[in-house]
Amino acid sequence: MKTIDVEVLKDLVNIVGEENILKDEVDLMCYSRDCTPYFCMPEVVVYPETVNEVSEIVKLANRRKIPITPRGGGASVTGSSLPRYGGILLSLVKMNKIKEIRPEDFYVIAEAGVLLKKLNEILSKYDLIFPHDVGSADACTLGGLIASNAHGHHGFKYGCIRDWVLSLEVVLPNGDIIRTGSNVLRSNCGYDLTRLFIGSQGTLGVITEATLRVMTTPKYKASIAAFFDRIEYANKAIIKIVSSGAEPSTIELVNRFVLKSANDEFKLNFPDAETMVVVDIDGDSEPSVKPRIEKIIDICIKEKSQKVYGSDEPSEIEKFWKPRLYLDLAISRRTQGKTNIGCLAVTDPCVPLSKIAYVVKALEEIYQKHGLIVGIAVHAGVGIIHPMIYIDVLNREEWKKAKKAEKEVIGFIKSVGGTITGEHNVGLIKIPYTRLELGNNLELMKKIKTLLDPNNIMNPGKLGLDVEDRDSSVDFAYPSYCLDLETNKEK
Amino acid sequence: MKTIDVEVLKDLVNIVGEENILKDEVDLMCYSRDCTPYFCMPEVVVYPETVNEVSEIVKLANRRKIPITPRGGGASVTGSSLPRYGGILLSLVKMNKIKEIRPEDFYVIAEAGVLLKKLNEILSKYDLIFPHDVGSADACTLGGLIASNAHGHHGFKYGCIRDWVLSLEVVLPNGDIIRTGSNVLRSNCGYDLTRLFIGSQGTLGVITEATLRVMTTPKYKASIAAFFDRIEYANKAIIKIVSSGAEPSTIELVNRFVLKSANDEFKLNFPDAETMVVVDIDGDSEPSVKPRIEKIIDICIKEKSQKVYGSDEPSEIEKFWKPRLYLDLAISRRTQGKTNIGCLAVTDPCVPLSKIAYVVKALEEIYQKHGLIVGIAVHAGVGIIHPMIYIDVLNREEWKKAKKAEKEVIGFIKSVGGTITGEHNVGLIKIPYTRLELGNNLELMKKIKTLLDPNNIMNPGKLGLDVEDRDSSVDFAYPSYCLDLETNKEK
Repeated sequence: MKTIDVEVLKDLVNIVGEENILKDEVDLMCYSRDCTPYFCMPEVVVYPETVNEVSEIVKLANRRKIPITPRGGGASVTGSSLPRYGGILLSLVKMNKIKEIRPEDFYVIAEAGVLLKKLNEILSKYDLIFPHDVGSADACTLGGLIASNAHGHHGFKYGCIRDWVLSLEVVLPNGDIIRTGSNVLRSNCGYDLTRLFIGSQGTLGVITEATLRVMTTPKYKASIAAFFDRIEYANKAIIKIVSSGAEPSTIELVNRFVLKSANDEFKLNFPDAETMVVVDIDGDSEPSVKPRIEKIIDICIKEKSQKVYGSDEPSEIEKFWKPRLYLDLAISRRTQGKTNIGCLAVTDPCVPLSKIAYVVKALEEIYQKHGLIVGIAVHAGVGIIHPMIYIDVLNREEWKKAKKAEKEVIGFIKSVGGTITGEHNVGLIKIPYTRLELGNNLELMKKIKTLLDPNNIMNPGKLGLDVEDRDSSVDFAYPSYCLDLETNKEK
Repeated sequence: MKTIDVEVLKDLVNIVGEENILKDEVDLMCYSRDCTPYFCMPEVVVYPETVNEVSEIVKLANRRKIPITPRGGGASVTGSSLPRYGGILLSLVKMNKIKEIRPEDFYVIAEAGVLLKKLNEILSKYDLIFPHDVGSADACTLGGLIASNAHGHHGFKYGCIRDWVLSLEVVLPNGDIIRTGSNVLRSNCGYDLTRLFIGSQGTLGVITEATLRVMTTPKYKASIAAFFDRIEYANKAIIKIVSSGAEPSTIELVNRFVLKSANDEFKLNFPDAETMVVVDIDGDSEPSVKPRIEKIIDICIKEKSQKVYGSDEPSEIEKFWKPRLYLDLAISRRTQGKTNIGCLAVTDPCVPLSKIAYVVKALEEIYQKHGLIVGIAVHAGVGIIHPMIYIDVLNREEWKKAKKAEKEVIGFIKSVGGTITGEHNVGLIKIPYTRLELGNNLELMKKIKTLLDPNNIMNPGKLGLDVEDRDSSVDFAYPSYCLDLETNKEK
């Protein structure tokens, strides 16, 4: 269903100028994908350069009831920035100004289209950092990070984006421009509108600018790699490390398959083990961090680690992180013809810390039972599990297996008191399971959505707010994708 | 205007039993005050013991359009739990069960009426702590802390309550019981309903239970006290300390008047100085903290501190904190006949760190100009300013001065880019200034309020949601209170 006619196009040209509009099919194709297997063509891509232009575009879309989907770097793993019903794809990448850096006040004001990488490059000149090292750090924009409430590799210490946003400029679905919060480190005036928009994935308005808290770059970093024969030992060590008060910046874990693949691929010479744990720790100086490194190493040894390495050499730290950061490369070389499809909706369940070992083993079993290859990485300090499965994407039966496993895993995660999404948010790909997760809270969300966006123009078809399936009104990058498990009806 | 008739009372008795209802005037009086000078009589006090009872009470109130005001420890400094329009005072203090402690998962599930002090007493048996040491720690309940998004003395390191709440049980204004978030350390499924209720001060529903993150009790604590001839030097030192990466748990500052009063009263033998800065630091052990203590001391010396003390002796740390924690006692002994009235709406403005010295001096001048005695304490790591003024509460002219100064200070805070409330929230006492702070955001808040509570039964008359004055429909503890500056109309 087309929503953009000649008149709308003319209006858009009037707002942003011909040079800030894409309408050729080949150009539009570039905006039809993210990191999911879904495919949704926009009808037009618009690049506003100012908040007033965004406001004018939103007003136009609202008047004409045109879907409008904001997009930053397009690095979402949830389909959140795919234009499910066509309409306007609103690219924020030309709103990329860093407006103010206040080193003495520990904040920065930046537009939504600023790349995280760029922000940190510029902050580094002031010896400052915005400490969110998400997997997509090279590609993602601040707006995308905030809209999805992203969480970096070192979120154990540094929390989610939510914890670092002081103020937001937002264009509401009616075109009104608001500024939430305040440019100070603490603000507590009534309802937390800032956090209403953080994580709303573009469904309540367009985030155009943010004031972010920043901090001094840590001066000393070290890392510990520990190998365990049994994941249960690792789990116990992890809990002891969190309990110890050693305040690491992250605790990561990979399963045997990831460790083995990386060991083989990168010739790391790590021991063969059931699990590998990497603990990072940072601080102002070596003397204040060193005692804590020793404490963490002691814990690992006491909890039966077969081998523990510790280092503050950047090249060694990089080596410790190879299995975690390059698991996709390592595994895909070993599974010819198979492609990492994430795990559909199972990208980031979060479980209680005491259940990590149990859950990782159960997931391995479930995927194995379904004949699927899985690599598992865990943000073990907070309990977020990242399984990654590899299938032949041209084989319909493999898609079916993946979907059956997905359903079983989600049910299992709920049965152990976990959440279906600890990190990536819902977007498109987790819609079938949002009701299971949220129950009647979904109705409350729908009411808030309707209150702010009665015409449902802002990123429709996401979060389960209007439709509770993910496979209608979308295309799929692979023709073998199986539409419906129950009916076996093919796409 | 009475809202409670015989029939309503009978219904309430049916829900909670005769023993859980207060209706005698003397009893009701105890619930008519908090830490503000306001006075609002409830018509009945009800003590539910279960969430289902809360739900039934709220349904009844909603059906009969009766105001319902939740109350925890009654320790609010904003008037947030005063029953402005009478009706039902819902005391949560009998919902005081700690339901589950999960030391390995680092969370606790507790009902809203649990005292913070009690929670920490019980957690200490597990070597755990909920690290929010608010000024009212002896009296406050978890529900009250969460409803106001409180911030403790060590919030520089430990953030606000917001950062520690994983899940909430809330009774909505229609009586529905919802559970937000998830009992895991990271949850990111759609809109952040948890943080919509945190800080909503009982206007969107009744918080009945929460899952809170907890941590291991820090094993080593130390404190540094530094004295500066000029507050500008102190300000520079504070910024350097934050920049240093030494990661203290708090940085506090008091002005000369507070320091002098405490010095005289408690015979502390501290140097006479324009300002005193106290830096706390904690961690897992002495070796990892010690280098950071030395760094902080070095910074203070380099930034021209006339005298710096450091200690890890509890008695010394207590001494360093005396001016901050007992300023009211020290000052009131020196201002016979004058009472600390906080500063009306000016209890907790927050300003950029680089402006602390400028703001403290300006506030001293403003209050002095109006002939008022003021003591100032600052959470200097985050920029929250606590001025405290002392007046003869029986003297109408003094109230007038206080109100004139309040208005001037609020205007000044906004002019330097600050917020009117960084910590305590709005409640009743800051209502006249919420529009100045929020602009049109207040309209968005009103819409959310109406969406959830169309009959305006939940804590009406607060946050500026329905009325934008604070002096109608209330009584005042002092007959000399002057109602209106402009018209000079007396209460």
